[in-house]
Amino acid sequence: MAVYTDVSDKELEAFIGSYDIGALTSFKGIAEGVENSNYLVHTVGGPYILTLYEKRVRPKDLPYFLGLMEHLAARGISCPLPVRDRAGHSLKELAGRPAALISFLEGLWVRRPAIEHCAGLGRALAQFHLAGRDFAMSRGNDLSLSGWQALYDDVSASADSVIPGLREEIARELSHLEAHWTADLPTGVIHADLFPDNVFFLDDKLSGIIDFYFACNDMLAYDVAICLNAWCFEPDASFNVTKARAMLQAYEQERPLTEAELAALPLLARGAALRFLLTRTYDWLNTDASALVKTKDPTEYLRKLRFHQRVKSYRDYGLGEH
Amino acid sequence: MAVYTDVSDKELEAFIGSYDIGALTSFKGIAEGVENSNYLVHTVGGPYILTLYEKRVRPKDLPYFLGLMEHLAARGISCPLPVRDRAGHSLKELAGRPAALISFLEGLWVRRPAIEHCAGLGRALAQFHLAGRDFAMSRGNDLSLSGWQALYDDVSASADSVIPGLREEIARELSHLEAHWTADLPTGVIHADLFPDNVFFLDDKLSGIIDFYFACNDMLAYDVAICLNAWCFEPDASFNVTKARAMLQAYEQERPLTEAELAALPLLARGAALRFLLTRTYDWLNTDASALVKTKDPTEYLRKLRFHQRVKSYRDYGLGEH
Repeated sequence: MAVYTDVSDKELEAFIGSYDIGALTSFKGIAEGVENSNYLVHTVGGPYILTLYEKRVRPKDLPYFLGLMEHLAARGISCPLPVRDRAGHSLKELAGRPAALISFLEGLWVRRPAIEHCAGLGRALAQFHLAGRDFAMSRGNDLSLSGWQALYDDVSASADSVIPGLREEIARELSHLEAHWTADLPTGVIHADLFPDNVFFLDDKLSGIIDFYFACNDMLAYDVAICLNAWCFEPDASFNVTKARAMLQAYEQERPLTEAELAALPLLARGAALRFLLTRTYDWLNTDASALVKTKDPTEYLRKLRFHQRVKSYRDYGLGEH
Repeated sequence: MAVYTDVSDKELEAFIGSYDIGALTSFKGIAEGVENSNYLVHTVGGPYILTLYEKRVRPKDLPYFLGLMEHLAARGISCPLPVRDRAGHSLKELAGRPAALISFLEGLWVRRPAIEHCAGLGRALAQFHLAGRDFAMSRGNDLSLSGWQALYDDVSASADSVIPGLREEIARELSHLEAHWTADLPTGVIHADLFPDNVFFLDDKLSGIIDFYFACNDMLAYDVAICLNAWCFEPDASFNVTKARAMLQAYEQERPLTEAELAALPLLARGAALRFLLTRTYDWLNTDASALVKTKDPTEYLRKLRFHQRVKSYRDYGLGEH
């Protein structure tokens, strides 16, 4: 949750005036989104979200993210749509930051996903993967294997101050993943951060997906592995196989997983757990106390990683024989 | 800016369901309001603000605050109106906190008030004072003289770590105010925190006043003195007499100040400056780094206090002879 940038009255007025959306009637910072500053904007035409992109997002990636939202929306995926100004631009600047105005998506994210939410998520994830197939732009995943190594180098000296023994445990896992990681699986656009707070529901029906600022091109099954981590564990870090089965079966109704993807799932889930363990450890060590960000406990992902290390096959995630 | 409390899905659903406002369609934490957790709530019926009252607000004061909003709204003051649930209650409980749903007020607060905003504020402040005259409830101002003494006791040992010499400077001012403070002026309901972020404008016209959680019964002219501090200084702490004149003249068009109030204005302005100097110093020393609150620099109010110490009469605030 974060609002980092103060916007002056005159700048804001000029910015909103460049769109054909009517006069501004309300402007409030939203306490959601860790990476960027988000504002709820009301105009006489309706509600919008204004995002100012802060330092963690590279400006050169923004056309990919905004273009992806337009691409997905045009293919029927419910996601925020960047608004174009009178000159046709969706990527603009405000208060010295890259900025975009996007449509407001109704819906609530579920604090504690139930089985039906996991099923809805699985279906939407597969539809997202299918809709992204003909997206023309490409962006590498800088938070995959080589990125993990770089993060490990950053945190290794202090990791044990976060959790005793963490340095050695990450190093061992990283060696394992380096030895076994694969790239030989179906690839495409992945969301790469499809946590419950990025998925909206209305009346327990999925109403939309938001926050495409980690999206990239990578193995589709890795996205599934991220969602296994993000959706299918209970608050006490126990794995809920019923939720996983619901998610995976719903996914497969839209896009069946290949044998190779299924076989790789435990490895991909370990990679996904390590990715969030590393970034949370990094954030834990590097978050400026004044940054208005609630730092998430890395322990959660260490426990998830240990679970996946014990998994023998994709069947442990609740899927029967294919 | 703050969202302190996590609300579970089921609690929220039950809470919203107790009102006659339709189904919930969106729920977002707002990064505004230091004392409480505020959420933007959309239902099919429209937008609302949900406030959870955190520790700094005393539950026993809430009927005063909510009752005041209802009283003011009934008298034509544009302010949020508490929504009553099906059982007729406006003060409720959510996630273990006192909670209230209030109407959403369109408008923007002005980051840098201009002369016309100060005039609008002056007029609205007087109208607020007049509308509060027949409010039946009463609440003492716990941030007046005795409260300042208590705050001074809390911060005195560490004050010099915030600004060298601050302890002695506060002690001297406090002695002066104790010797000269008055109570013999017209009293009534005061807002007591009418800073620019609590006043909304649409098209440079004042559209509403929010955040009544410091409201209390005290001298009306003390509220004017707070606004002199909050609205009539430039970012470099220089006093803008044109803005002060605009504010005071607009106030007096609705409610002329008495000779005694005018004579006391410099003293009241010193008291108001000291009040915010003390609370900001206290917050500076006591804010938990994890509290997601941007702590405001106490220096600003030390400079304002020094300005008022040099003021000879109310004429220095831009008013001519009465």
